[in-house]
Amino acid sequence: MTRTPPERPGRGRRPAAEVRRGILAVTADILLTDGVAGVTFDKIAAAAPASKATLYKWWPSPGALAAEAYFTHVEEQLQFDDTGNIEHDLRTQLHAHVALLNRPDVGPVIAKLIGAAQSDTELAEAWSRNYSTIRRRTAVERLQRAKEQGQIHPDVDVQVVVDQLWGACYHRLLIPDEPLSIEFADSLINNMSRGILVQA
Amino acid sequence: MTRTPPERPGRGRRPAAEVRRGILAVTADILLTDGVAGVTFDKIAAAAPASKATLYKWWPSPGALAAEAYFTHVEEQLQFDDTGNIEHDLRTQLHAHVALLNRPDVGPVIAKLIGAAQSDTELAEAWSRNYSTIRRRTAVERLQRAKEQGQIHPDVDVQVVVDQLWGACYHRLLIPDEPLSIEFADSLINNMSRGILVQA
Repeated sequence: MTRTPPERPGRGRRPAAEVRRGILAVTADILLTDGVAGVTFDKIAAAAPASKATLYKWWPSPGALAAEAYFTHVEEQLQFDDTGNIEHDLRTQLHAHVALLNRPDVGPVIAKLIGAAQSDTELAEAWSRNYSTIRRRTAVERLQRAKEQGQIHPDVDVQVVVDQLWGACYHRLLIPDEPLSIEFADSLINNMSRGILVQA
Repeated sequence: MTRTPPERPGRGRRPAAEVRRGILAVTADILLTDGVAGVTFDKIAAAAPASKATLYKWWPSPGALAAEAYFTHVEEQLQFDDTGNIEHDLRTQLHAHVALLNRPDVGPVIAKLIGAAQSDTELAEAWSRNYSTIRRRTAVERLQRAKEQGQIHPDVDVQVVVDQLWGACYHRLLIPDEPLSIEFADSLINNMSRGILVQA
């Protein structure tokens, strides 16, 4: 019979949710300092109030932990308001998103993470499950509500709007031929809101 | 005094443009078979009708050669028509673009190439210089012409339209949470053309 190593002394029993929050905070720090390559279970276990066994129990891979840590870290900054005016709320949200991607400790890390995901299936799945699909769902729900309120044309596929607003920002992050500026965010909204074509 | 090794025998002197075309074709083959990691000057020199010295003279890095080879390879398939109707021409072009990115020998290679560019500055510069800025310029020129003809609202920044059409496709290629389909391409155009918001 093998024995689980005892938890480190002097800490007492803490609720799992609190331990989890602590791990995610430590991981976000390491991610934004050292990038995704810095996120290893050894490093997190050494810095966080948790054993490596706990990390293995809760996350299938360091990539999964990194993606969830990033999601938790930015969740508050990327709140999606509902003031009742979809154009206003899209503008607020997109400004916050562009500001986040322009942070020197965030943009390059996210670009490298999405980059690494192109040849690391586990990381790609972790990013999708713990970050991108959740953010997508939040946006889709807000857009869907606006559609039900008659603010968005009834035949619009709101999933596609996500790619034309947030996806367009990722495009400028990953292929930086043109600036990812607040003016860009405003132009995205303007084009999307009323369309670019002069109707015949 | 060092001597340049003689060109391989039996080939005679061929025009530089022809040699260049041959190198680009061989490189595109290797890129689409083995990915960007397969594109080395050793491998190209062994397969192409040119010496390594020629490769070094014409391209600063294998990444630069790979990007130009890809551009040359897809150039014909990504022609931007001018029928006089911008909505029609955008649709034709975007359908071709989505079909290209969905080719099993193309999409994954391009995703990995853009992925690798996130942590390889030389590759990123090569991709920008030899592919993405050139494709962007082609689209911008076509959109600008439509604007001058009064088909696009005069205050639209046509650079932003590139991110909302082609950039949105790259978003679905790189973060594949939703399908990169022809229906998606059509929705991109529809949203962009007339806008998604019901005007008050």
